[in-house]
Amino acid sequence: MVFKKVTLIGTSTESFDDAADDAIDRAEATLENVYWAEVKEFGVEIASAENREYQAELEVAFEVED
Amino acid sequence: MVFKKVTLIGTSTESFDDAADDAIDRAEATLENVYWAEVKEFGVEIASAENREYQAELEVAFEVED
Amino acid sequence: MVFKKVTLIGTSTESFDDAADDAIDRAEATLENVYWAEVKEFGVEIASAENREYQAELEVAFEVED
Amino acid sequence: MVFKKVTLIGTSTESFDDAADDAIDRAEATLENVYWAEVKEFGVEIASAENREYQAELEVAFEVED
Amino acid sequence: MVFKKVTLIGTSTESFDDAADDAIDRAEATLENVYWAEVKEFGVEIASAENREYQAELEVAFEVED
Amino acid sequence: MVFKKVTLIGTSTESFDDAADDAIDRAEATLENVYWAEVKEFGVEIASAENREYQAELEVAFEVED
Amino acid sequence: MVFKKVTLIGTSTESFDDAADDAIDRAEATLENVYWAEVKEFGVEIASAENREYQAELEVAFEVED
Amino acid sequence: MVFKKVTLIGTSTESFDDAADDAIDRAEATLENVYWAEVKEFGVEIASAENREYQAELEVAFEVED
Amino acid sequence: MVFKKVTLIGTSTESFDDAADDAIDRAEATLENVYWAEVKEFGVEIASAENREYQAELEVAFEVED
Amino acid sequence: MVFKKVTLIGTSTESFDDAADDAIDRAEATLENVYWAEVKEFGVEIASAENREYQAELEVAFEVED
Amino acid sequence: MVFKKVTLIGTSTESFDDAADDAIDRAEATLENVYWAEVKEFGVEIASAENREYQAELEVAFEVED
Amino acid sequence: MVFKKVTLIGTSTESFDDAADDAIDRAEATLENVYWAEVKEFGVEIASAENREYQAELEVAFEVED
Repeated sequence: MVFKKVTLIGTSTESFDDAADDAIDRAEATLENVYWAEVKEFGVEIASAENREYQAELEVAFEVED
Repeated sequence: MVFKKVTLIGTSTESFDDAADDAIDRAEATLENVYWAEVKEFGVEIASAENREYQAELEVAFEVED
Repeated sequence: MVFKKVTLIGTSTESFDDAADDAIDRAEATLENVYWAEVKEFGVEIASAENREYQAELEVAFEVED
Repeated sequence: MVFKKVTLIGTSTESFDDAADDAIDRAEATLENVYWAEVKEFGVEIASAENREYQAELEVAFEVED
Repeated sequence: MVFKKVTLIGTSTESFDDAADDAIDRAEATLENVYWAEVKEFGVEIASAENREYQAELEVAFEVED
Repeated sequence: MVFKKVTLIGTSTESFDDAADDAIDRAEATLENVYWAEVKEFGVEIASAENREYQAELEVAFEVED
Repeated sequence: MVFKKVTLIGTSTESFDDAADDAIDRAEATLENVYWAEVKEFGVEIASAENREYQAELEVAFEVED
Repeated sequence: MVFKKVTLIGTSTESFDDAADDAIDRAEATLENVYWAEVKEFGVEIASAENREYQAELEVAFEVED
Repeated sequence: MVFKKVTLIGTSTESFDDAADDAIDRAEATLENVYWAEVKEFGVEIASAENREYQAELEVAFEVED
Repeated sequence: MVFKKVTLIGTSTESFDDAADDAIDRAEATLENVYWAEVKEFGVEIASAENREYQAELEVAFEVED
Repeated sequence: MVFKKVTLIGTSTESFDDAADDAIDRAEATLENVYWAEVKEFGVEIASAENREYQAELEVAFEVED
Repeated sequence: MVFKKVTLIGTSTESFDDAADDAIDRAEATLENVYWAEVKEFGVEIASAENREYQAELEVAFEVED
């Protein structure tokens, strides 16, 4: 059994939780067998967004098929 | 005055805040004189849970009685 | 274009998100051209507060005027 | 010459060395021009496995073709 | 569900794998519901041991009962 | 909006700047919507190269299309 | 032979050395076979103390009896 | 003698060296007794700039006057 | 309640404790509501000083007034 | 009593344990009073070796004679 | 095959690249079989130099002869 | 101008300051042109010493002669 990790940054105008979910949603929409995720960093974009944009960088692990 | 730190991982199906509260609740249920907590890591269990399980690893500090 | 970073710790009795917003609110009230913020640490004060006090330490970046 | 790195987690019921080899085997089965690997973390899964499952997280570098 | 982590250092005159197993054996002999372990550091004691003593420092996580 | 990060190592016989550009050039040749890059490490290969080969390891972030 | 590590924070109104000794004194008063200690962090409490309170966070290692 | 450190991010369309100089130029234009600087991070802005914008984050230390 | 952190480096020809006190003295002379300090690094200047100059880099936190 | 540390990278076509032993063997062949070693990093060379070459980077500490 | 690493800090009044080359030049002038180098830190000396002095701290690895 | 760094661990039965001085004393007794030192770690040996043995690990930098 081998896992692979990809690094995704989700965004939300609501909260860090939503930003993390955004990244996991994307992972589950494009990958099968997603197992777990680890938060690497939280940030907030202010100047380039109308409202504050919460960002969550996650490493998402999924099982690689044989 | 001496403090001791223990490492606890709280879980929640709702949010990272709830997962952190879960760990602190546990500390306060079994330890007296809990002073503060530091978040070490946030993660999400996906495959082994029906819903996403948010996890918060905290170091919780309490005063050791003489 | 030069940016400067300041380190602020916001607090909230509600959540880590609110604590982060508290720090950014402060930055925007006293600084112009705030661009982004990076979360450095989350913690919870327990003994010295009536309720749990969520804390968020952020590095906030703003553009320095010429 | 440009290299790309991917993060793989190999597993083994025998040893950390085998877990690392497992990740490299996978890399070599699906990628050409694998150059080197760096161990990022060793861990052991206990509860969810019949026997202890040794895990090795590696960053594997390979040359990207032009 | 709350997990607790303890830090144990296992030793072996044979290998790092054996030193890690030594720490996990100890954890399983005194704790129930051991879930996983993370290697924090490998070292070798040379002067104070007759043979080389391999050491593995692990954080071992177990579920805390309600 | 979700971003993904890939880790690339660019090389140059001239300078660290050129090595970083080499990695970004590659990213822009194969990916759309490249947003930013973060330098993770600089190194120099000496023995295996005729001249010194400067290397720059970068994490390159790009927007993932829906 | 297995060692266990606990994290203690000693305090002193005099110096960092005294704060470290305070933590080790506590360890030796309640644990047998204390082997060594590693300083993790030094800090100073100012507002909540009449005088400055020096703090030393240490990981203290002791041998676990069979 | 007491030093203070401020964190500045210089930018340049040419190179990391120029971006670092940009931050130090700014420090010297507004502060006296600048002593040294330490590079914390290099990055490249790509999407929001016409050309690549090299960025250098520096901690700049200066002596505080009595 | 919002805190701000500044980074100060105190110096002393006597000890690390004195160097840390030097930085805190400076903070208390120019800032109100200083709460706590965290040691980031200890160093010793040798060549540029007649005697050894002990240095302590601290992050000092103070409450920002509304 | 003063100790000095040197950084050595041992190699082996067999295992990480052998690579670590290789570095310690070298240290003991050229230095007296070797006390202990700490593993800094494990890696695997793949492209430049016929077989996989396991590498272990260690800091080896020895007592300096008066 | 065993490698040893030494830590050198090169200096230049021109650029970080030149400072790194300065350290590697020194290594190659006094050591045989220099293989590679890793940048540990970039800094700039300002007060003690007439012009800015760019500094590059490198770990330089060379093969130890049998 | 090129500097080299060596890693030394000084010991003392009195204090961390004395342990650091011990390492610098040794450096100055055997090396010329010692410039500065950086503390990497403080520890305390307890079981193998009659009294507590304070240890200070330092990187000591000295100028390499041409």
